[in-house]
Amino acid sequence: MDLSALQAQLRQFADERDWHAFHTPKNLSTALMVEAAELAEIFQWMTPEQSDAASSDPATREHIGEEMADVLLYLVQMAMRTGIDLNAAVQDKLAKNAAKYPPPG
Amino acid sequence: MDLSALQAQLRQFADERDWHAFHTPKNLSTALMVEAAELAEIFQWMTPEQSDAASSDPATREHIGEEMADVLLYLVQMAMRTGIDLNAAVQDKLAKNAAKYPPPG
Amino acid sequence: MDLSALQAQLRQFADERDWHAFHTPKNLSTALMVEAAELAEIFQWMTPEQSDAASSDPATREHIGEEMADVLLYLVQMAMRTGIDLNAAVQDKLAKNAAKYPPPG
Amino acid sequence: MDLSALQAQLRQFADERDWHAFHTPKNLSTALMVEAAELAEIFQWMTPEQSDAASSDPATREHIGEEMADVLLYLVQMAMRTGIDLNAAVQDKLAKNAAKYPPPG
Repeated sequence: MDLSALQAQLRQFADERDWHAFHTPKNLSTALMVEAAELAEIFQWMTPEQSDAASSDPATREHIGEEMADVLLYLVQMAMRTGIDLNAAVQDKLAKNAAKYPPPG
Repeated sequence: MDLSALQAQLRQFADERDWHAFHTPKNLSTALMVEAAELAEIFQWMTPEQSDAASSDPATREHIGEEMADVLLYLVQMAMRTGIDLNAAVQDKLAKNAAKYPPPG
Repeated sequence: MDLSALQAQLRQFADERDWHAFHTPKNLSTALMVEAAELAEIFQWMTPEQSDAASSDPATREHIGEEMADVLLYLVQMAMRTGIDLNAAVQDKLAKNAAKYPPPG
Repeated sequence: MDLSALQAQLRQFADERDWHAFHTPKNLSTALMVEAAELAEIFQWMTPEQSDAASSDPATREHIGEEMADVLLYLVQMAMRTGIDLNAAVQDKLAKNAAKYPPPG
């Protein structure tokens, strides 16, 4: 995934629509959470097994993909607005997780 | 961002800890939403202006980056579990957004 | 608010529709979070001032009330399913909050 | 549950701490969602069956009750701030649900 190209695309999109005033970290983080909830809503009444089977249905698969994309797009916009390097943040977190959850013996 | 390499890293991490039974789409989407809420919590009592200034503080910046990383890591695991191509989903969504919100004349 | 009467209403509603198998604490807590996100979505692009003015508009006021009701209805169902006394839980929490945030001298 | 008494308690608590500037509908709805996520987090890796058994453990039961109380306390503060009557909103919603989901047979 080319994050720089994606950021450029999203920046132009927001520029053309004059959306920068709305895109504070406060608002973007709420919007991200709302999209995450829309993703979870798809699975809320399913059993664990049904949730694994859900992506075999073409319409549900498209719906899941769309909500996942919405989450990612707000996340990339958060990264732009805060100037945080998402790649570096992920590598830092993976290192922390490896220390926090050592593999069993 | 090299999503394939990241997916391989996450798959190995879950393999070593026997976490696959827990990583259903149902559980992963809830976990993703919980991380999104932890990100929003950072900004919940801030004014919009304070939320823009927050990432200038080193400790807050690290906290924001960590929660953003958590969101992305669960999103990548959702993509793996469902077999959904995150790049393609994002490009589809950008095309839909461009049609839904045409730039002003 | 007569919580016992409300619980009886909700129990009968779920009985008649055979919904008890779906109403595990896991599912109810996710559904509650989804409704909370729908409430937050109403205000996500508003300034703090606009969010205070929003309930003056009749249609928005009805929308806010409806999402608040959804949150409460899932909360009451969580209380029923877990057997937790919501009144007692609230009084316990108020006591903890008073200890945690002492009023300024 | 005596909502008027609870509202009076919460109003005094916020008065004494000068919290009214923070308690906009925008901020309260985000805070409510964050508490709802903390409730869902308790159950996120559990099976449906484990989530039903969870409230038998005293420590987990107290934790669940505390997160449920947090949700309710923010909800009551939303009702105060917006002037929305929670009882009326709930009765309206129950009527809508009965129309939307007619009982079988």
